[in-house]
Amino acid sequence: MTLLYEGKAKQLYTTDNAEELRLVYKNDATAFNGGKHDVLHGKGELNNAISTLFFEVLEEEDVQTHFIKKISDTEQLVRPTRIIPLEVVVRNITAGSLARRLGWEEGKALSEPIVEWYYKDDALGDPLVNEDHIAALGVAKVEELEEMRMRALHVNNILVDLCWKANLLLVDFKLEFGLQDDGTLLLADEVSPDTCRFWDSETKEKMDKDLYRYGLGSLQAGYENILSRIGGVVYD
Amino acid sequence: MTLLYEGKAKQLYTTDNAEELRLVYKNDATAFNGGKHDVLHGKGELNNAISTLFFEVLEEEDVQTHFIKKISDTEQLVRPTRIIPLEVVVRNITAGSLARRLGWEEGKALSEPIVEWYYKDDALGDPLVNEDHIAALGVAKVEELEEMRMRALHVNNILVDLCWKANLLLVDFKLEFGLQDDGTLLLADEVSPDTCRFWDSETKEKMDKDLYRYGLGSLQAGYENILSRIGGVVYD
Repeated sequence: MTLLYEGKAKQLYTTDNAEELRLVYKNDATAFNGGKHDVLHGKGELNNAISTLFFEVLEEEDVQTHFIKKISDTEQLVRPTRIIPLEVVVRNITAGSLARRLGWEEGKALSEPIVEWYYKDDALGDPLVNEDHIAALGVAKVEELEEMRMRALHVNNILVDLCWKANLLLVDFKLEFGLQDDGTLLLADEVSPDTCRFWDSETKEKMDKDLYRYGLGSLQAGYENILSRIGGVVYD
Repeated sequence: MTLLYEGKAKQLYTTDNAEELRLVYKNDATAFNGGKHDVLHGKGELNNAISTLFFEVLEEEDVQTHFIKKISDTEQLVRPTRIIPLEVVVRNITAGSLARRLGWEEGKALSEPIVEWYYKDDALGDPLVNEDHIAALGVAKVEELEEMRMRALHVNNILVDLCWKANLLLVDFKLEFGLQDDGTLLLADEVSPDTCRFWDSETKEKMDKDLYRYGLGSLQAGYENILSRIGGVVYD
């Protein structure tokens, strides 16, 4: 089967069915635009399990996603899409680049979520862009941006609620969307502690990739903690 | 008379009339967030003359501005406002940070103008922000942003036309707005080669602060050239 795409943390392969692709979660951890890189045993399996749980909940809530099903410890079947080269970031609590951009401390709850667009381009360091930049880049139409923003905020509502029940704060997260041939927009990529910040609701302990990014502790221990918490939530 | 505000290139004083302030254009040239600084004889006079010409044209076109009149070689009378701490940048041609952000060459004409917001904060390096950041910062209301954007694009139309008649390309420019006590929004600050990029329409020769920023030639020679060109335009 042909390797269609290899990213920092995942590979995408064709299958013998044109409607299905095989997504493989790797053990690679990277940070700072590839400036830090390690192979962490068990990471792919944990992210596949966590992302599967989140995608299943989102599908139940009628969010259209590329996810079909989990097929092994490190693999999912997904629908083919043309990925829009934008990262949609939703923030509920200040952290990371938002805290640096606005000169605010980490951990400040925002009265309304902040949505940001980043242009996916490693050579440029994934710069923050606005709707006018996106129009000039020609990577998405105005209606697609509006749809992605609404979907991202809807996903945020669902995940904040789920996390809260799991005693986790959803600080912020990054989504990617893809277009099917008929123009249908699907939530793609992954939803995992690689792409979301999760803190313990009470202690504010970090359990996501910041553990690896800033050398704060075992990434696998944090991801296992998240998996056991959200896996234990009865979703209704 | 009391000094109300001193910026990198201007000072603002009270007068004996509460409805009027005295704006003084200084000879200071700065770049790279204050990293480069020189005093250039004649600069204040040139910027005052050029800014006056532009504000007079904008007022004729019913753009509400803080400008009242020029009162000396380096001074204007202006209306008092509470400055909104946002820079509104309008771009017609790629240059400067836009070219770097999107990885494009300088000098590419945009099919539609790009509008950008920057949060005025020297300590943060005046970061690019979006409407959600601005809402979180609480520095302007949604309606004020929409009004500023529309005004900035209107100003762009007027100035592009004027510049074209003066054989100049208006590459991009930065505006600032202020609120009067009754909530009226006025175009404030200055419109000059310190805050606009002007290129010769044919040779693309730079005539603005990039001359100083990148050490490309005499700032005063460029500013004199602009003044003589726009001063010679019959505005109708």
